[in-house]
Amino acid sequence: MSQQKQSHPDSNLYPEATGLASPTVKAHAAEHPLKLYAGWFCPFVQRVWIVLEEKKIQYQYIEVNPYHKPQSLLELNPRGLVPTLQHNNKPLYESTVLCEFLEEAYPDHPPHLQPSDPYERARTRIWTDFVTTRIIPAYHRFLQYQAARDGAEGLQEARAEFLRYLKEFAAEMHGEGPFFLGEELSLVDVVLAPWAVRLWVFDHFKEGGLGLPGEGKGGEDEQVWARWRKWVAAVEGRKSLKETTSAREHYLPIYQRYADDVAQSEMAKATRLGRGVP
Amino acid sequence: MSQQKQSHPDSNLYPEATGLASPTVKAHAAEHPLKLYAGWFCPFVQRVWIVLEEKKIQYQYIEVNPYHKPQSLLELNPRGLVPTLQHNNKPLYESTVLCEFLEEAYPDHPPHLQPSDPYERARTRIWTDFVTTRIIPAYHRFLQYQAARDGAEGLQEARAEFLRYLKEFAAEMHGEGPFFLGEELSLVDVVLAPWAVRLWVFDHFKEGGLGLPGEGKGGEDEQVWARWRKWVAAVEGRKSLKETTSAREHYLPIYQRYADDVAQSEMAKATRLGRGVP
Repeated sequence: MSQQKQSHPDSNLYPEATGLASPTVKAHAAEHPLKLYAGWFCPFVQRVWIVLEEKKIQYQYIEVNPYHKPQSLLELNPRGLVPTLQHNNKPLYESTVLCEFLEEAYPDHPPHLQPSDPYERARTRIWTDFVTTRIIPAYHRFLQYQAARDGAEGLQEARAEFLRYLKEFAAEMHGEGPFFLGEELSLVDVVLAPWAVRLWVFDHFKEGGLGLPGEGKGGEDEQVWARWRKWVAAVEGRKSLKETTSAREHYLPIYQRYADDVAQSEMAKATRLGRGVP
Repeated sequence: MSQQKQSHPDSNLYPEATGLASPTVKAHAAEHPLKLYAGWFCPFVQRVWIVLEEKKIQYQYIEVNPYHKPQSLLELNPRGLVPTLQHNNKPLYESTVLCEFLEEAYPDHPPHLQPSDPYERARTRIWTDFVTTRIIPAYHRFLQYQAARDGAEGLQEARAEFLRYLKEFAAEMHGEGPFFLGEELSLVDVVLAPWAVRLWVFDHFKEGGLGLPGEGKGGEDEQVWARWRKWVAAVEGRKSLKETTSAREHYLPIYQRYADDVAQSEMAKATRLGRGVP
């Protein structure tokens, strides 16, 4: 183990995708002019990966350890962010930008993940922004909260804030669904889906768990929580999500470090500074 | 003066647009199905206002004091954010979403502020995001920094951080310009322009001023600072920007409160919490 690795415990992550994501990676090992620089565990990567899989776009999957960024990535993107796409030798990054790019650059690849009406498209951008600026920072404040250090009351507040944002999101969904805009999957679903399949971390790591009301237990909010559960089930059942998700045992040590608030990812550090998605 | 006004000094702002923005407001007083809920002083509003003026889209300008939100606005948007657009009775908000919406919903209104190539469009979104997540929070950290309270060294750091982001932005510009993508104005220019015409606040309020190198004084960075100055001149000279900017004397008391770090806007409060654009 190198000196650098010893000084950076987050670099000790399982080296490759497992579970249902493993055959997906193997199917995209060949050289291709569209390259996805990815970390198998990263939810921001998974957003873009889902879009590639949904639209059956050909691409080359390149696994990167973001704590040991390869020179090839740093040449594309000085911050070495994943996900990065390389498209005919030109780099692009920022997961929501990449999702929209794939939608616009591959118009002949259904499903279309943006509505064609400009007003509806603007609405999906508002709620995509809500996911990034509200839900994800609240997810991390809750996950990284240290009750032993900072008091149990704050944990309740962090949980309540997170659930309040999920409820606000669910209340905006199409009545029947099952997806946010209705019958069809769209980018609003895609941008939240990776965190929806990572909700188990709260039951696993946090005293009191996620705290989402069970069926029939939502009181005056039962209808909106029922809608939320329907959405989660639809997203969890989606093939593209399953086939970009690894075995839970390999996420565990990674999320343990978040739950202990010692993770050193950009997101973890931003959360400690009280900031949002970096 | 009402009880509420007494308790909220930010509500004592000049009630309407002045200077070159005044005739623009008067020309858009008539009832119209496209309504812009605006604050004359708000740079986020100005982004959307510039797009409306550039594209000569018909709209109704509705002045709102964001510290005394009218019920009509709260019904459209529970947080009462400005800018809010009402389009055929349907509300939209978030300034960058509104800019893209106007571009997409009025395709027959040149100039086109997004490039037609998907890669170039993605690139404009990356740098639009950079403005919102890097440059604007750094602008506010610098402006709201209190040297007397927190030490002069931190002011230097806040200034250096802000200038570093401006330089990073300028280094990505088209070589000749004058605008970010080249000869034509685009949304990347529009989203930063309102802050570009509010750079005087640093020379006015902050010990040591903005600190941007003058002509020929940029040392090894002279080329990139020359490019920055060319961009600022092009943006400042744009008709749509001038005609949505009010007289400086009426911005002064507003920015005085930012410079004293007592402003109560959502942006000012987020900055005090160490967060980004709320």
